[in-house]
Amino acid sequence: MHGGLLRHVTLSLSVIAVSMIPSTTTTTLGDEGMYLFNDLPRELLKQKYDFQPSDQWADELRLSSVRFNSGGSGSFVSSSGLVLTNHHVASDTLQKLSTEDRNLIKDGYLARTHEEELKAPDLELNVLIEIVDVTDRINAAVTNKTNPDVSAKQRQGAIASIESESLEQTGLRSDVVTLFGGARYHLYRYKKYTDVRLVWAPETAAAFFGGDADNFEYPRYNLDATLMRVYEDGKPATIEHFLRWSDTPVSDGDLIFVSGHPGRTQRIFTVEALEYLRDTRLPFVLDYLRRKEILFQQYQLEGNEASRRGRDELFGIQNARKAYTGMLAGLQDPQTIATRRGRQHRLIAEANNNPQLRPLVSAWQEIAQIQKEKAAQLTKSVSLRSDLIQLAMSILLLAKEDQKPNEDRLAEYTDASRESLLNRLTSPAPLYDDLQRVKLADEIALLLERRGMGDPLVQEVLAGRSPREVAAEIVDQSKLDDPEVRRELIEGGLNAVLGSDDPAMRLARVLEPEFRANRAVGDQLSEREKQAYAKITQVVSAVEGTGGYPDATFSLRLAFGTVKGYVENAKEISPTTDFDGAFAHAEAHAGQDDFDLPESWMNAKDKLDLSTQLNFVSTADIIGGNSGSPVVNREGDLVGLIFDGNIQSLTSDYLYTDQQARAVSVSGVAIREALRGIYETESLANELGR
Amino acid sequence: MHGGLLRHVTLSLSVIAVSMIPSTTTTTLGDEGMYLFNDLPRELLKQKYDFQPSDQWADELRLSSVRFNSGGSGSFVSSSGLVLTNHHVASDTLQKLSTEDRNLIKDGYLARTHEEELKAPDLELNVLIEIVDVTDRINAAVTNKTNPDVSAKQRQGAIASIESESLEQTGLRSDVVTLFGGARYHLYRYKKYTDVRLVWAPETAAAFFGGDADNFEYPRYNLDATLMRVYEDGKPATIEHFLRWSDTPVSDGDLIFVSGHPGRTQRIFTVEALEYLRDTRLPFVLDYLRRKEILFQQYQLEGNEASRRGRDELFGIQNARKAYTGMLAGLQDPQTIATRRGRQHRLIAEANNNPQLRPLVSAWQEIAQIQKEKAAQLTKSVSLRSDLIQLAMSILLLAKEDQKPNEDRLAEYTDASRESLLNRLTSPAPLYDDLQRVKLADEIALLLERRGMGDPLVQEVLAGRSPREVAAEIVDQSKLDDPEVRRELIEGGLNAVLGSDDPAMRLARVLEPEFRANRAVGDQLSEREKQAYAKITQVVSAVEGTGGYPDATFSLRLAFGTVKGYVENAKEISPTTDFDGAFAHAEAHAGQDDFDLPESWMNAKDKLDLSTQLNFVSTADIIGGNSGSPVVNREGDLVGLIFDGNIQSLTSDYLYTDQQARAVSVSGVAIREALRGIYETESLANELGR
Repeated sequence: MHGGLLRHVTLSLSVIAVSMIPSTTTTTLGDEGMYLFNDLPRELLKQKYDFQPSDQWADELRLSSVRFNSGGSGSFVSSSGLVLTNHHVASDTLQKLSTEDRNLIKDGYLARTHEEELKAPDLELNVLIEIVDVTDRINAAVTNKTNPDVSAKQRQGAIASIESESLEQTGLRSDVVTLFGGARYHLYRYKKYTDVRLVWAPETAAAFFGGDADNFEYPRYNLDATLMRVYEDGKPATIEHFLRWSDTPVSDGDLIFVSGHPGRTQRIFTVEALEYLRDTRLPFVLDYLRRKEILFQQYQLEGNEASRRGRDELFGIQNARKAYTGMLAGLQDPQTIATRRGRQHRLIAEANNNPQLRPLVSAWQEIAQIQKEKAAQLTKSVSLRSDLIQLAMSILLLAKEDQKPNEDRLAEYTDASRESLLNRLTSPAPLYDDLQRVKLADEIALLLERRGMGDPLVQEVLAGRSPREVAAEIVDQSKLDDPEVRRELIEGGLNAVLGSDDPAMRLARVLEPEFRANRAVGDQLSEREKQAYAKITQVVSAVEGTGGYPDATFSLRLAFGTVKGYVENAKEISPTTDFDGAFAHAEAHAGQDDFDLPESWMNAKDKLDLSTQLNFVSTADIIGGNSGSPVVNREGDLVGLIFDGNIQSLTSDYLYTDQQARAVSVSGVAIREALRGIYETESLANELGR
Repeated sequence: MHGGLLRHVTLSLSVIAVSMIPSTTTTTLGDEGMYLFNDLPRELLKQKYDFQPSDQWADELRLSSVRFNSGGSGSFVSSSGLVLTNHHVASDTLQKLSTEDRNLIKDGYLARTHEEELKAPDLELNVLIEIVDVTDRINAAVTNKTNPDVSAKQRQGAIASIESESLEQTGLRSDVVTLFGGARYHLYRYKKYTDVRLVWAPETAAAFFGGDADNFEYPRYNLDATLMRVYEDGKPATIEHFLRWSDTPVSDGDLIFVSGHPGRTQRIFTVEALEYLRDTRLPFVLDYLRRKEILFQQYQLEGNEASRRGRDELFGIQNARKAYTGMLAGLQDPQTIATRRGRQHRLIAEANNNPQLRPLVSAWQEIAQIQKEKAAQLTKSVSLRSDLIQLAMSILLLAKEDQKPNEDRLAEYTDASRESLLNRLTSPAPLYDDLQRVKLADEIALLLERRGMGDPLVQEVLAGRSPREVAAEIVDQSKLDDPEVRRELIEGGLNAVLGSDDPAMRLARVLEPEFRANRAVGDQLSEREKQAYAKITQVVSAVEGTGGYPDATFSLRLAFGTVKGYVENAKEISPTTDFDGAFAHAEAHAGQDDFDLPESWMNAKDKLDLSTQLNFVSTADIIGGNSGSPVVNREGDLVGLIFDGNIQSLTSDYLYTDQQARAVSVSGVAIREALRGIYETESLANELGR
């Protein structure tokens, strides 16, 4: 779920980034925490688990960990560049590599030779090489503290300069990450892999066994795993740091670690920020997601080929809808907010009693005020969620931003971001006209619904035609579905872009002024939020002590926990499942959609060791983006692969608990057993961990 | 679809009834029109089709026509009480008669003897016996023309008195119908049948072949038909007026008539009223429907039994969602409104030039103003769509309204309405706890989302608990799911109801004050709308001439048209299909959900005359509520059974066209052929029309 969730969280966040601030050690619960690799909780691990990670242990784990730009995590698992991730993280690539005659998502894939490994059209993997603290340099650059428009510009300019210098010096992808809501800035340097090839994927029936019904549920029996391979210079890359593969299944009570890229948490959020989520933002997003879910369902009813074309997007939407539904239900429990309100009142009271902290108290009102302004912005977005229009808009903005000095550009258009951006904009991934028409018509209809027919922008977009007519015209006549046409336009620069009469580009030009205006408001809100949360962080640190971990930022983190069952409806849920359970589960749900195991499994049933562990749960603190993260034991050997959280974990965006909330993993032993017994690839099974 | 559509249109209309005003002959298009049986378009039919219906022809058709209180139409087709309607109109009953071991919706049913005919738990059929014009009496009662609260009360009081007098005098169900937006009031007297039994229903795979994908599409191949039988004194009723069954399939160009109960049209709506639909009401309703669609889908994923329990409601929701989507898309075409705006400008200009009409022009502003007030009311509803809470609320209101004189009561609680109301409130139809929990929890969550956690009513409902907890407590502890408990409570009167500590009743009491406040606002808006549209009707009549038909009111109407194909995407669509086409369609969509014909069809394929006509389209003017309407020829013999409109007809709520819009029917010959060849019931086939 997490890859899908993350991708859609990103989509639905509009332009306003969320600030990230730490909880602190004094308030962490159980195995809570997503720790920075340069600030591991050594004391805590020693106290609680008598575990003292060596520097080498941590470095190996970090350098074996991989980030997927499609919104997930992974790990190196062989010296020849084999990368392990989830099927549902790889599904973006599987979708793009599929054709009417080759449905890789549904049917899976196995490359018997390197030659058969299929190059992903636009996948980028990142390995974290180095973290540098650049807080002082950025703080020095922000000289204006009163006008958020100016300070945001100064901050953004400093970040752009640091990133571009670093790129030039090291050749490494260089991203400045805002931590603790702006109290800390770290420069993350990544080695980048852009030649990534598909090696093996199971069938959806195995990877997503139980479908939407079982998603976020436990017990589970899913082989949500895929293997890819990174290449350099056209050959499998030689990888120095990769994970060994444990032959031992996990046991109840085992200490385990998760090294991955949690996307976003909101644990520092004030009561008013959570109320905004509960009363405004999440209901709004859910209406949007349900709209798109029905739209894609309807599109897919058109036939088997439509069903194939829309599959990955529908999965992502359903996944996000289910996740947000759980999140909202958690917030709608008055006890959730009551607990937070108690703590907030204490913090404010203590701060008011302390002359040094008292000036910081206004930050809570500022956050409350910002929520109101966010609500007012909610329906103003003109970022049509159409691939064609988004490509056109990106190309237009790129050409325009290129006219400015690097430090003045929108964040996505700086020098440091260029290579990844170009990779994405010229991706050969297919765009299907029928699906594009459906998506664009609905987005234009939504623009009309949100802004009303009288809105001048709506009038300009429609020009007397219906949303369907506009969409049909654009999709039928635009040439931007051809990556070569996009490349030429980008290379042609501003004149080519402004002179283009491609209808998608024309629409992008119509939308641009409003897009920029919204973006400016969003950036300003984000800057003010940063400043306010930084103050709140100061109060928290002063009142409750320092330490802990920053909210998630889709950068590498270490979580830890134990393999542990839980009690649900007065029933003990065992922490592990096995292949035998998978076959029993299929039988128990015979006749229901998505509960048929694939033919390959049915054929292999007699050959398999059915007692092999298949999935397990642990108390590790994970969130969307952690999908595909390796789970390692005390020795740093791979024992599992994160692929889901249970229903009870859906509130972990803003609240970690270990009472029932669990991270769900595929067992390492299951993957090896399946490769041998079901997919009959002894060579791949043997390559794991070597 | 129409039954489902109608049911859900009713559901989603909140408390504000819609006024109904006529288009006029001068502006009708093609075969437009849903005519009153006491004002048939004799001149038009003579001119256009050289057809002069005799009084006997019209009386026979009227007395053979049946209204279903579940939201559809039907007809008597034998002297022994056989009633023909759609499977999707009967599905409400099929659902209520089904159990875990007997899935009548999915598997169909055939009673081989009268003893095997299954009594519907709460179905009421109405046959229109007489129409009396009571306009003068009502107008005389409304003495106050300035205060809409007072005039609404006066009007409602007069209606209640007329209905109750009529009931007493005739023993017939007596409903006053508001026509032409309040320019005319007619008293409709119905014979009522409440012992209705299921005789035959096909499988859903035959009735709804092609599922949601093919819904509203054409060509179609559906056997959307069901036979029921009315009983009196425990025996099949002897029916004097019933339709003969034609053995001849329809042909291209045939004149046909539809006698049924169209639910609601909005053809008199002003531009501002349509804009309110487009910009506010329909997007709001669609968000609601999509929310419920996903909710039911998720519930049904719990297993086969959940899937069975939720089936009919999900069908209704999907059907309404698809219909409203089409309706909104039509309104979002700027040309739709532009055409209407042109006419409106002309009407206003002409009225302004005429001293007698000039005072009426303010009606357009009044309608515009009412739309704004409606928009403000939209999210205020406290009518939780939970069966349990709706039953509790009705019982509470009944007890309270009973304390008032008949003329002062809310319309649903007058003496004339009592018997039907009690029938509904004590229905033995099952309520399933798991489904009730899901529905109620979502409605409470929605109340919270719409009104915010700070709302006093929300605070009172939640009392510190989450929506799920509140719903679980109510559903687990309420006894109102037992019809006997409801009957006792009703018989116990006000003291029993106010003293009840049943949690569903407690919640109803909490909601009641706000419910009444909203209702009062709604009634007032409705009264003002009536007065304004009555003025607009005067202008229309003066400017464009009189005549025509009133907007639909779920009362009996006659429509006419011809069997006629159309052109779509430059392709000729033939007006008729046959059984051969059904088998070909199944083959063409092999592997897609809902495209497998049932086993009974596959087994019978060789015995069937595959060239038998199965479905046909015509230009008759129909809408939701017409589902199940008989289609008759010039001789008044049954040739078909309305079951759907095509996609192009979805705008017919506010705009009839015959360019592509078509009514879709099952052919009479197909039903007889299927009964003989597939369902092997020669006796039933022979009973048709005799």
